[in-house]
Amino acid sequence: MAVSTMQDLFLDELRDIYHAEKQLLKALPKMARKAGGDDLRQAFESHLEETRGHVERIEEVFETMDVAKRGKTCEAMQGLVEEGREMMEEVEDSRVRDAALITAAQKVEHYEIASYGSLIALARQLGLKEAAGILVKTLEEEKAADGKLTRLAESGVNREAAAR
Amino acid sequence: MAVSTMQDLFLDELRDIYHAEKQLLKALPKMARKAGGDDLRQAFESHLEETRGHVERIEEVFETMDVAKRGKTCEAMQGLVEEGREMMEEVEDSRVRDAALITAAQKVEHYEIASYGSLIALARQLGLKEAAGILVKTLEEEKAADGKLTRLAESGVNREAAAR
Repeated sequence: MAVSTMQDLFLDELRDIYHAEKQLLKALPKMARKAGGDDLRQAFESHLEETRGHVERIEEVFETMDVAKRGKTCEAMQGLVEEGREMMEEVEDSRVRDAALITAAQKVEHYEIASYGSLIALARQLGLKEAAGILVKTLEEEKAADGKLTRLAESGVNREAAAR
Repeated sequence: MAVSTMQDLFLDELRDIYHAEKQLLKALPKMARKAGGDDLRQAFESHLEETRGHVERIEEVFETMDVAKRGKTCEAMQGLVEEGREMMEEVEDSRVRDAALITAAQKVEHYEIASYGSLIALARQLGLKEAAGILVKTLEEEKAADGKLTRLAESGVNREAAAR
């Protein structure tokens, strides 16, 4: 789709994050399986649940705009997922791998934080109040998920590995 | 390089962001040339200057660790730069393109914020105080650059485009 107007840009970005969230739906169960620490595994599992909700919210936004839902290949998220996959396979020590998984997951969260932040700014400028309200909920959850990962990184996981 | 220890993970991540920053050195002049608004062009130009400093700081960290400086292909940043490039070519309206450039640039900033945040946490756990101190300076500049882009997105650039 050619991007000519601000609404085109909003839809293009919405399709990008729709595809990104769907890639994450596939990646998170693998990350949870690879996690050594219980807290980290649970964080991934609960974020998987949230991510299902984020996909539904994006579909709601498509509906409010009366536009068919569809994704657009998100190359950035493909790169992030690929980096995370390589790391999961390369690292043998489970505590070092947990630290690597946290790093990979925080990059994903920050991609989403930037994307939803831009979408909300665009929605407000376009007067799409309902869409903005829906997307704000997801942005808050992404920020909370990032904060949880920071706390896990700063607490046991990495410290234990460094002490090995 | 196989990642076995926390120090390996730190170096792996350092090589990733070293490559990422160098890709950004190439992308930012193009983004500045494509920017329609003076404020946005200046923001990209001043961030290019900062980015040169970030590359030097990473080289300093390699030196403090007595490790040869080298990069590792950063697929995520390649994806981000590719998305930005497509957007620059696709969008004809200069104000819509500025909004798209801001979105692309904020994704890059957030990638870097996540990466430097992880590096600093790892450096602290490894007792690499000098490295942590160097990297904190860059993290603060990346956050400030992101904040500047948010203000640009919320002010004139996007609003003008929506009014067209």
